[in-house]
Amino acid sequence: MKFEVTILGSSSATPIFNRNPSSQALNINEHFYLVDCGEGTQQQMLRFDIKPGRIDHIFISHLHGDHYLGLVGLLSSMHLNGRTKALNLYCPPELKEIIDLQLKYSETTLQFAIDYVFTTAGIVETILENQDIIVETIPLDHRIPCTGFLFRQKKRLKKLIKEKIEKIGIPIEYYSAIKKGADYTAADGTVYKNDDITIEPEAPKTYAYCSDTIYNERYFKQISNVDLLYHESTFMHIMITRAQSTFHTTALQAGEIALITNAKKLLIGHFSARYKTLNELLDEARSVFPETELALEGKTFAIE
Amino acid sequence: MKFEVTILGSSSATPIFNRNPSSQALNINEHFYLVDCGEGTQQQMLRFDIKPGRIDHIFISHLHGDHYLGLVGLLSSMHLNGRTKALNLYCPPELKEIIDLQLKYSETTLQFAIDYVFTTAGIVETILENQDIIVETIPLDHRIPCTGFLFRQKKRLKKLIKEKIEKIGIPIEYYSAIKKGADYTAADGTVYKNDDITIEPEAPKTYAYCSDTIYNERYFKQISNVDLLYHESTFMHIMITRAQSTFHTTALQAGEIALITNAKKLLIGHFSARYKTLNELLDEARSVFPETELALEGKTFAIE
Repeated sequence: MKFEVTILGSSSATPIFNRNPSSQALNINEHFYLVDCGEGTQQQMLRFDIKPGRIDHIFISHLHGDHYLGLVGLLSSMHLNGRTKALNLYCPPELKEIIDLQLKYSETTLQFAIDYVFTTAGIVETILENQDIIVETIPLDHRIPCTGFLFRQKKRLKKLIKEKIEKIGIPIEYYSAIKKGADYTAADGTVYKNDDITIEPEAPKTYAYCSDTIYNERYFKQISNVDLLYHESTFMHIMITRAQSTFHTTALQAGEIALITNAKKLLIGHFSARYKTLNELLDEARSVFPETELALEGKTFAIE
Repeated sequence: MKFEVTILGSSSATPIFNRNPSSQALNINEHFYLVDCGEGTQQQMLRFDIKPGRIDHIFISHLHGDHYLGLVGLLSSMHLNGRTKALNLYCPPELKEIIDLQLKYSETTLQFAIDYVFTTAGIVETILENQDIIVETIPLDHRIPCTGFLFRQKKRLKKLIKEKIEKIGIPIEYYSAIKKGADYTAADGTVYKNDDITIEPEAPKTYAYCSDTIYNERYFKQISNVDLLYHESTFMHIMITRAQSTFHTTALQAGEIALITNAKKLLIGHFSARYKTLNELLDEARSVFPETELALEGKTFAIE
């Protein structure tokens, strides 16, 4: 099952040449999920071949422009390109007011429904559960209400050991029950224990998206042991005072958070426009947590 | 006096790879004016080295997203980059409501004032006059209220004929009056006629920005004889029915409008995303009006 994230934007508040504001596309079992949608996201999707028509879920962390100003343009393009299937939008409730106002003045009635799920900052809520994934909000701590998102793969079914199944001659109609853990009793009364005819599925993987936030331990427990932690690291640690006053995190702190929460890997992003190159940020995070990568635009990271 | 336009975006409703939605930067005597501000305009400004800090006037034609969705991001970046000088914004009144709502939810108080001048669709109004330029609205005819903008250079002062001025020995304190048309009477009573000691300044130039609109003669008289006419040409003429139903113009019609209004040059833009290359649109407009160019991104056109 595919579970990977493609970076569409890695910049913080102001874009710089070749760095767009925040957006990421998750491919979960060939279903696409967009996380944040800064200005220019639809152009980035064109650039990196992420098809808007395949996105059915969009998550907006908060209402600073660098995280959502590309949304109305994307919705408009979906509409003009003939979309009719509903879109699920997970966001602060005020975003609906902004979207409605913009659609009203452009005299646009979208041809598709937006099914809103409103987030509430400061608490953990499950906002989506489907066959592939469970998504929870993460109570980040930013200047305005802001939620991160924790994507947990669903526990998958056990896998049949094909050779044994065939040798025993188990009829196909029993497969579903066995995958769920049932033993198999043959016509002659022989009982085949589930563990002998199946193997455990891969452990479910987890991805945590944490942008934007000041360093605050309140969400550390929730994100512990994730396979991939995306954490904002807007500044170098020498700018800790600025990071604190603007409710952001430094690269050093991002590394510490990955270490404390026992992340398998760390991805840093949401870089301040003051950094023309990013190696220093990477080095600083790696000084604490070596398994760190930069969220560079167009790069895809497998969650494994 | 410099008078030129740089194309920042030439796409219509949906962007395509390498074509951004509408925006243009005018350089008028080293003062910069932005006309429309589609999504991604601030990134285009970075790309083509147009400094946001030098822009003091922004004109928004109408409230379809491809003409203004980049504005709040640009305002936000101006704010974060320390702008304090006021910005003049010429736009439909509803845009203020949209901007205010977005600033409210991002809890942003801009460090600079926005001085709004609200446009009224359907009539001609002078919305700006300064030392360099007079700007009038053009009553375009679109699906929602929409105004074009006519930029007329101010008539400049006459130029002194330096050799004659020096030979006669005219004191410097008379220059200003002579430039405005006064004769000069020397101490010995000799009268030097203004026409003998000055030359006419260059004729004021004009630039008309016409996007978006259906073909409608009502604004033709106003834009007659412009030096450069930018006119939308969203479709090829074979799609005239679609152009009419969406209140747009075809390339053929744009050529006809340039011909009828006696434009010196025509610039076509606002191309539908269906056209991956633009030569056909150019050829079609040129079949009627040979002095036509494509509004390609990053290209600068002198208005002369």
